Amino acid sequence: MTDTPYVLRADDDGVTTLTLNRPQARNALSQGMLEALRAALAEIAADASVQVLIIAGSGPAFCAGHDLKELRAGNYAPDYVDALFAACAEVMQAIVDLPKPVIARVHGVATAAGAQLVASADLAFAADDARFATPGVNIGLFCSTPMVALSRNLTRKHAMQMLLSGDLIDADTAFRFGLINEVVPAAELEQRTLAFARQIAGKSPLTLAIGKEAFYRQAELSLADAYAYTSQVMAKNLQAEDAKEGIDAFLGKRQPVWCGR
Amino acid sequence: MTDTPYVLRADDDGVTTLTLNRPQARNALSQGMLEALRAALAEIAADASVQVLIIAGSGPAFCAGHDLKELRAGNYAPDYVDALFAACAEVMQAIVDLPKPVIARVHGVATAAGAQLVASADLAFAADDARFATPGVNIGLFCSTPMVALSRNLTRKHAMQMLLSGDLIDADTAFRFGLINEVVPAAELEQRTLAFARQIAGKSPLTLAIGKEAFYRQAELSLADAYAYTSQVMAKNLQAEDAKEGIDAFLGKRQPVWCGR
Amino acid sequence: MTDTPYVLRADDDGVTTLTLNRPQARNALSQGMLEALRAALAEIAADASVQVLIIAGSGPAFCAGHDLKELRAGNYAPDYVDALFAACAEVMQAIVDLPKPVIARVHGVATAAGAQLVASADLAFAADDARFATPGVNIGLFCSTPMVALSRNLTRKHAMQMLLSGDLIDADTAFRFGLINEVVPAAELEQRTLAFARQIAGKSPLTLAIGKEAFYRQAELSLADAYAYTSQVMAKNLQAEDAKEGIDAFLGKRQPVWCGR
Repeated sequence: MTDTPYVLRADDDGVTTLTLNRPQARNALSQGMLEALRAALAEIAADASVQVLIIAGSGPAFCAGHDLKELRAGNYAPDYVDALFAACAEVMQAIVDLPKPVIARVHGVATAAGAQLVASADLAFAADDARFATPGVNIGLFCSTPMVALSRNLTRKHAMQMLLSGDLIDADTAFRFGLINEVVPAAELEQRTLAFARQIAGKSPLTLAIGKEAFYRQAELSLADAYAYTSQVMAKNLQAEDAKEGIDAFLGKRQPVWCGR
Repeated sequence: MTDTPYVLRADDDGVTTLTLNRPQARNALSQGMLEALRAALAEIAADASVQVLIIAGSGPAFCAGHDLKELRAGNYAPDYVDALFAACAEVMQAIVDLPKPVIARVHGVATAAGAQLVASADLAFAADDARFATPGVNIGLFCSTPMVALSRNLTRKHAMQMLLSGDLIDADTAFRFGLINEVVPAAELEQRTLAFARQIAGKSPLTLAIGKEAFYRQAELSLADAYAYTSQVMAKNLQAEDAKEGIDAFLGKRQPVWCGR
Repeated sequence: MTDTPYVLRADDDGVTTLTLNRPQARNALSQGMLEALRAALAEIAADASVQVLIIAGSGPAFCAGHDLKELRAGNYAPDYVDALFAACAEVMQAIVDLPKPVIARVHGVATAAGAQLVASADLAFAADDARFATPGVNIGLFCSTPMVALSRNLTRKHAMQMLLSGDLIDADTAFRFGLINEVVPAAELEQRTLAFARQIAGKSPLTLAIGKEAFYRQAELSLADAYAYTSQVMAKNLQAEDAKEGIDAFLGKRQPVWCGR
């Protein structure tokens, strides 16, 4: 068991899939899983061959959140608990900071920190039988870190409905709330997500990195500051070879050839 | 008339309902009403027997906003006006600050500061014949304080549509905008809201208080600060007896018994 | 060609329509177009006869964004590029700062900075055949300034879907995302938008100016600061003659007569 990798990595022509690989634990975010995710994300951040990242889960669930058995076994020791939540927040922020688009591919349940993974991704595709919840309230431990990602994706009453009730919502409701981008028949989820990832992987990786970083930075600025900042980003982006190539290709009605600079 | 209480309080096994009780004035938020609400909210905040609060209105309307007759009778004197808007903002913030979930139960119309009450609640259930508006623009007095709550619930174009047009929107539109969580046949509204409130009242009051406070605090922080803050909240929450009991009960497949500590 | 005005202005009883007038260039936001828009917005801001502004496009498209031919012809010179993006951001902020409601009337495509125009307007009506995109990612130049307006209208996953894919979305999807307020049969778009504009133009211009300014200012404040600020706005609004007239008219069940003070 301890030799089974926590996370499986598969590379497919620019699209990398990280699959959480503790199906018998519904891919709970144990210390080992978080460390494996952290390491994999750091590796992928620095790997120029990866254009788009898909995060998926093996077995019946996408991810059931923190590992409650481990938490209890650790006897809730403050140092252990602090380290655990710090590691989890680090992974979630690494997804936001990754200079490549991240797509969550969700089947089964995505609950607590599992729903946070979905909310932290840039995009999310879900099977029509997927379900989502922030059920911490049911076990006396409010989903206070998941709410950070959730409340930056959903409007307030929708987020509060999930957080206060702890109820599972189905894929159609998650779609209505804006937590996911598309609901796909379960049998087609993998193919559909890959097709979308490939479409994005065909774009300039430099441009994707510039845009993703700018998106999350400007979101925290006032309107005036956001315009001052992004105007600089645009001006710098325009000096890149890929922008000049892209404009040439567009005006010449041909496909661009990216160099990534 | 002056002996009729502005607000009726009914307690039902952890679920308290405050009913605005000036039906002939469509429950307008007069000075008297605001003072009664402020006092009732302060009382409820400190009352350990209250787990969930429902705010409702008696008569044909939920709440029609400020009392225009009173405003005019007060001759718009600056001191009076300042005190009135301060009292109103205080009530709305007391709903947000209340360490218990608040559900607006809306029938008839909820307009101006009445719509603000709905937006300020954590959750809202509405009858299928309920209608909502911020009609201040129609009387030369823009709904500038209601917009504070409204624009923290709705996306920008939806909020602007209500604020600039002053038009009534129906319950289905309010549901689409995210102002309310559920549309219920009028005859079933009271029962449905109570059932949902009871579900929440079955959870640990300590956990609900921790989560609600964290929700509104983290919403005003940057992503990094929000994670730093909520990681501490989670770690502290985990030291509570209710969290340990909740995790034990979950892993033991039994119902938890909360002690509220 | 150089004598053709970039922007056509038509005044109709308080409702002014600015029509982008480079149909052969799909109303691209060239330097000339941006300067014409800037000047027209400054003029309208100071023109008491204008109550509501509609922004529209002539020809087959609403607006296709920046003028790529011009950008390339300018050889991406840093000074030129900086000035261009500064001019564009200035126009978008002038729409937000305009003390009158602005409605985008969208037909055909609204792409890149054209979608930004739609997002920057207070309200947007679109023909059922209208389509929207932020396709910069397809030409190596991420839509980093359009994202500022877009991400303040749409929830995060919806904005990211548009920005990372570059795909056109149809009017129904834009409606679902909250980018537009209403989808109208193409043949009825002009009439429907005008009717809505006239309804708003019948309100007090002073009240509209107070409310619009307050909306965007409070949106950038914490809840407590937003209430402190808007409570002052309300109190000041209430001292205006139009507020007293509006309340008198409402209580007297007659139509108000605005004086704009």
